[in-house]
Amino acid sequence: MNQDVIYYPESSIKEAVEKFETPFFIYEEKRLRENAGRFRDTFRKYFPSFQPLFAVKANPNPDVLKIIADEGFLFDASSAGEVWISQKLGIAGMHTGNYLGADELKMAKDAGFTINLDDVSQLDFLKEIGVPEKLSFRINPGMGKGEYESLIMAGPDAKYGIPYEKAADAYKKAQDMGAKHFGIHMMTGSNVLDEGYFPAIVGRLLDTIANIKEKTGIEIEFMNIGGGFGVPYRPEEKSLDLERVASGIREAVDKKCNDLQIREPVLMAEPGRYVCADAGWLVGRVQVIKDSYKKFVGIDAASNDMPRPSIYGAYHHISVLDGGDKQEELVSVVGTICENNDQFGKDRELPACKRGDIVIIHNCGGHARAMGHNYNGKLRHAEYLIEKNGNLKQIRTSETVEDLYRGTNI
Amino acid sequence: MNQDVIYYPESSIKEAVEKFETPFFIYEEKRLRENAGRFRDTFRKYFPSFQPLFAVKANPNPDVLKIIADEGFLFDASSAGEVWISQKLGIAGMHTGNYLGADELKMAKDAGFTINLDDVSQLDFLKEIGVPEKLSFRINPGMGKGEYESLIMAGPDAKYGIPYEKAADAYKKAQDMGAKHFGIHMMTGSNVLDEGYFPAIVGRLLDTIANIKEKTGIEIEFMNIGGGFGVPYRPEEKSLDLERVASGIREAVDKKCNDLQIREPVLMAEPGRYVCADAGWLVGRVQVIKDSYKKFVGIDAASNDMPRPSIYGAYHHISVLDGGDKQEELVSVVGTICENNDQFGKDRELPACKRGDIVIIHNCGGHARAMGHNYNGKLRHAEYLIEKNGNLKQIRTSETVEDLYRGTNI
Repeated sequence: MNQDVIYYPESSIKEAVEKFETPFFIYEEKRLRENAGRFRDTFRKYFPSFQPLFAVKANPNPDVLKIIADEGFLFDASSAGEVWISQKLGIAGMHTGNYLGADELKMAKDAGFTINLDDVSQLDFLKEIGVPEKLSFRINPGMGKGEYESLIMAGPDAKYGIPYEKAADAYKKAQDMGAKHFGIHMMTGSNVLDEGYFPAIVGRLLDTIANIKEKTGIEIEFMNIGGGFGVPYRPEEKSLDLERVASGIREAVDKKCNDLQIREPVLMAEPGRYVCADAGWLVGRVQVIKDSYKKFVGIDAASNDMPRPSIYGAYHHISVLDGGDKQEELVSVVGTICENNDQFGKDRELPACKRGDIVIIHNCGGHARAMGHNYNGKLRHAEYLIEKNGNLKQIRTSETVEDLYRGTNI
Repeated sequence: MNQDVIYYPESSIKEAVEKFETPFFIYEEKRLRENAGRFRDTFRKYFPSFQPLFAVKANPNPDVLKIIADEGFLFDASSAGEVWISQKLGIAGMHTGNYLGADELKMAKDAGFTINLDDVSQLDFLKEIGVPEKLSFRINPGMGKGEYESLIMAGPDAKYGIPYEKAADAYKKAQDMGAKHFGIHMMTGSNVLDEGYFPAIVGRLLDTIANIKEKTGIEIEFMNIGGGFGVPYRPEEKSLDLERVASGIREAVDKKCNDLQIREPVLMAEPGRYVCADAGWLVGRVQVIKDSYKKFVGIDAASNDMPRPSIYGAYHHISVLDGGDKQEELVSVVGTICENNDQFGKDRELPACKRGDIVIIHNCGGHARAMGHNYNGKLRHAEYLIEKNGNLKQIRTSETVEDLYRGTNI
């Protein structure tokens, strides 16, 4: 059993369910800082000038963002909404949009983000909004890896980036337009637990850097290798060995820079899930236990709170508070939405539950509430933070029914 | 080519893109009324006391709801959010929740909805909130049909309803608790285009009604056969022949009521998609055209506006305004979200597009904006109504970036 997966802050959750209405999300500051610090320090051991960026899309709660920024992270933003909150917090970083227009690129540029263009055609927008001194392009290396098909971020079917064969032309065009300092970016996978994958994609990126230098004379100054650093969701999965990832990248960089005779660029990476996923839980209360053709445990949360199982069929570990790891019953843990994919866990061996018991869904610190919706007229629920000192702090209130009809003629 | 699928209100959309910012949803009152009226009248031809209910979850916009209520529909609600808007509009109907607790059932009861219980165990809640005179149960007939696996609403793996073998016990228990008038409900499928399916499930429901009568003496007074009335999404699909559906149900009811010696219950049905899906369109503007390993047409809308393709891989027909039905290029029409499933259409033959062109996504009147979310810090966009007289009316404003952080400590 992987302790990273099955851990939850038991006493704080007990305190929270006494004090607050269920369901809610709860995040642990201590674990957020540990994850962020481990990521930063492991890479800096091998790359002293390494700059981590947090992928805001994973968990855009401002209190969470503040903690991660405090650990030395800049932000990876991808939309006007994410730039707006970054500005409020006084943090910039790199902006990687996808098919965005001039307005959103201008907003990111004005907020101090390094613009990472998704396509050469977007250079036309820079004519309108001004060419920045420093510019990056997202490259599609023609390969990718993902936990689910829709999360494969590169390769022939991916909508992202510039095909690596065409990269040199894009940089030349940007240089002709006045850009002076250049970076390169790649985001190829999602939730990868294979340490060897990362050195391989870095090798591909360095090949592209050498190709750009050869064709244009441009030296790439920084290299953002994207995210995709995985966390285990199942107790039987191993955690990613970040030391092996970073040392593997070190080796690849040393070898490639020597072989290809290129200058080593500053290394950047933009983890989201790795920093926050296992530092958050969705906590719900059992409302109905149904003996149908199968046994269903219905809780007061639903897939609109945390859609990953409904969209990807994703596995999230489930604990019952005070239930320990007893396997007494085969049940499906379901929510209150009229879609049959609204099942947090199908056919799980769990401790016997009764109405009122507390159920804990693991790995809900990232890409969880952030993906929430209001289908079926459902509300997205509150978020709490367990501060370093153990205090519980509300960091977002639950939505109300009035919120659902905001902007309508009611 | 099915004209129901490829139709769009061209002149109104032209006027709207001149006046309003893209992207937006636009609905046509005329078509909403035609669909609602056809449904009501076709069933009333065979069942004079037929009562249609509109599934609010399909399109909860208050102006849309008002039009459909004006066509003689009551509402099918499934949550506190849907009960709240029904109350505001002064319309009740039937309330079919799923694993809901006492609070939400009480709210529905107080608003005048007929309570349709999902499980016998929920009778305990009625002890707390008061047993209504009129009560219904949702039955799982052990069979179901759906366009996608997650939309199969009944059968052994479905979380809904009471297994039909156990139905009589539930009614007996409810009668013992004081309920006096009984209904029965079944919702077994989604987007069904096979006319023969509906008489078959009605037969199954009537068998259950006979079984209940035999075991308990209770006569079921109303029968809600649910929704699932499909609309074609692809131009090559045929439209549902509602006349055949209603006449087929008439035959099944006549035969079964005679064979089983039961009184004919009042017929009800709760369409959502059938009434509104083809009366709405998502309208976006081309922002970026990318020649990658494939050709991508990037528009200013994204899967957060309308997630069906990203979740189910659902097909939605796509037109280019002023493009006609020319098939000049093989392209994928994509949005601005960092998920590779954010593709409204993959590898479609479309008229050649350039930046600024208007793209129209069909069948976005139901289960479209209602499923929207804010992942990647994206906003859900405005809704407009083409009124009967041709006027354009804004019926919901776009979200703002401030909306994304409502309730946080910013």
